[in-house]
Amino acid sequence: MLTPHRQDTNSLYLTEKLNELGVEVRFKCVIGDDLEGLTAAAKLAMRRSDIIIFSGGLGPTEDDLTREAVAEALGLALRRDAEVLAKLEERFARRGYKFSANNAKQADVIANAVVLPNTMGTAPGQWISGKYDGKDRILILLPGPPYEMKALVEGECIPRLRAKVPAQHIAMRTLKMALIPESQVDARVAPIYKAYADVETTILAGGGEIQLHLRCRKDTRAEAEARVEELAAKIEDEMGDAIFSRKGETMEQIVSYLLQMRGMTLATAESCTGGLLAERITSVSGSSRYFLGGAVVYSNELKTQFAGVPKALIDKHGAVSREVAAALAEGIRKRCLSSYGVGITGVAGPGGGTEQKPVGLVYIALAGEEGTQVVERNFPGDRRRIREFSTQQALEMIRRALL
Amino acid sequence: MLTPHRQDTNSLYLTEKLNELGVEVRFKCVIGDDLEGLTAAAKLAMRRSDIIIFSGGLGPTEDDLTREAVAEALGLALRRDAEVLAKLEERFARRGYKFSANNAKQADVIANAVVLPNTMGTAPGQWISGKYDGKDRILILLPGPPYEMKALVEGECIPRLRAKVPAQHIAMRTLKMALIPESQVDARVAPIYKAYADVETTILAGGGEIQLHLRCRKDTRAEAEARVEELAAKIEDEMGDAIFSRKGETMEQIVSYLLQMRGMTLATAESCTGGLLAERITSVSGSSRYFLGGAVVYSNELKTQFAGVPKALIDKHGAVSREVAAALAEGIRKRCLSSYGVGITGVAGPGGGTEQKPVGLVYIALAGEEGTQVVERNFPGDRRRIREFSTQQALEMIRRALL
Repeated sequence: MLTPHRQDTNSLYLTEKLNELGVEVRFKCVIGDDLEGLTAAAKLAMRRSDIIIFSGGLGPTEDDLTREAVAEALGLALRRDAEVLAKLEERFARRGYKFSANNAKQADVIANAVVLPNTMGTAPGQWISGKYDGKDRILILLPGPPYEMKALVEGECIPRLRAKVPAQHIAMRTLKMALIPESQVDARVAPIYKAYADVETTILAGGGEIQLHLRCRKDTRAEAEARVEELAAKIEDEMGDAIFSRKGETMEQIVSYLLQMRGMTLATAESCTGGLLAERITSVSGSSRYFLGGAVVYSNELKTQFAGVPKALIDKHGAVSREVAAALAEGIRKRCLSSYGVGITGVAGPGGGTEQKPVGLVYIALAGEEGTQVVERNFPGDRRRIREFSTQQALEMIRRALL
Repeated sequence: MLTPHRQDTNSLYLTEKLNELGVEVRFKCVIGDDLEGLTAAAKLAMRRSDIIIFSGGLGPTEDDLTREAVAEALGLALRRDAEVLAKLEERFARRGYKFSANNAKQADVIANAVVLPNTMGTAPGQWISGKYDGKDRILILLPGPPYEMKALVEGECIPRLRAKVPAQHIAMRTLKMALIPESQVDARVAPIYKAYADVETTILAGGGEIQLHLRCRKDTRAEAEARVEELAAKIEDEMGDAIFSRKGETMEQIVSYLLQMRGMTLATAESCTGGLLAERITSVSGSSRYFLGGAVVYSNELKTQFAGVPKALIDKHGAVSREVAAALAEGIRKRCLSSYGVGITGVAGPGGGTEQKPVGLVYIALAGEEGTQVVERNFPGDRRRIREFSTQQALEMIRRALL
């Protein structure tokens, strides 16, 4: 997990499960296979948190040191558990594998630990509950492979934790907004959420989207829900229809929902976004009900052939222009006989920019029964971001047209 | 980053860049927006490591506390930098945004820090180099948004680090293969790489791709490169042209390279992949040189209109069929006058599957001067995975046709 290649997904899963129990995650760390570092981290964690979960390092190799480090941090000995050892030997015999000496290590258990049987693999989990510096602490050792860890969390850890953790409830809301600067959102909503000290509010920004995560922890579910609901309602009053999603839905899902509710259909003609808009729309299952199809028209010839953009118009205004964006939207709408047509043309970079038409300049057009609107944007960032922003702008325009 | 929602990708990128300089990552942690916890973590990190990189928490909100925590840990004051402030104000004015008071926080700089200009966003990075407890330490503060962080790492940090870090060398190779089971690859290559104990070999699988990562650290670049090269060559002998990439290039980049080398062009007609293939191809900058365009043909009418698939053929064989895939590929090639045409039709699910045509059944066709080939696949997994595998298969067919 300290290489450039492996993404940590175990901790996200553990966080989700802990939050459901009303347990907050305060600190995560990734440590190498080094006894001293592991022991120091375990000691520090025991000073800081009520529950400490270790994932990985329970295997048979010399690098697997979690058992040793936690025992050392607790000042306890390891004992070789005869029952675990017998099960390991039996498992190896059943598969016809040789039981080499290093495999016996996996039967080493911390003196006062409860063994959590691993039905999916070899090394069992361990559950240690006791006092450390006079405070109640729970330490849980879990194997690293995700499917082994998950089976142990669901089968062994959650029932035990539920019995230990005081009954409390976390209510959550996620409000999403598109294409508004983070600082502008914060300036408007901070005065509101600051009056709710008991609701933790986090603002996340990325990909042309602002997310407001509200979380509130109370003794009863009703109390927690009521507080979060009250705050969410006030934020919605302030931000109005800039908020596109109230339950964590993606922009694509919201557009899908609105198109189906209105019985409308959609077609797209993309140049610089190269199919990303169509890809985002069709990532929603059931999108064939409202998305008829689209054209990716990189060359000028195809702009004419697939979306009926007059060659003279391209010659006059250039492929990246307000006029060509409108013609793409109108042309694809006509060709596909859809309620709405979207046209996008711009300079995604990194090459191809000029002084008049710099990298990031994008025209996005939406054509419908009531006419065609075109917006001009200068998006910051690299090729991927410019394409992301452009498609987000297009989806936001569709959403607003359908409100 | 302590929620169940956000995957940490910044640290993987940073690890890659640090490894390239011969710097190993020993410890990673994720801390909440809490001044005391952040300060304690900063102090601990300075005791432990030569280089400490902080990512995130440089924004304008009250939760953005990295500047404050690092200043506190170093026992230094923050000063408001007039030049940074002027740039921020100018940036806001240029975009027509109001400069609210909270934005000025982003101009706060630790007393002895070098300001690293952020060309992609608002908050600049900061570089602090000095003694801590008598030891040389480098502290780097970077913004959290990945594209801002990456621009700063490449433009500002790597050149500075290269001048500071002792010359040591890690040689790396990444060999990639498409659409082969991981266990099959491992069975063939494990006997080879096990003879190279000084080269760390990791196999990763995902998205229809197997990656073999080879890493070797030696005192000289030549030694490290020679060992990795020797092992890579033996693995290449074993796997042959199943290996599509030798320097970490993506499949899209390899296809781009081959198409340009051969002076060939490409067009696509996609049904179930909904534009993902066009999106992947056009994610490579400069793709307009060989990608003419494509059609996303969800409805049968558009399969006929955009790719010239005869209505009778669809009626006879169904939209998801070997024949329609071939007609899509041939039709789009003819319409776009491209060297190659790709056609994809299938059931991406989760709905729409039948006993004859289950979810995961996909036909992928490649039409060229020498004729048309169609493959039938039954891909496992959910909608996203099926679409990913289908486009990977299409790209692999293009690659092999161009070899």
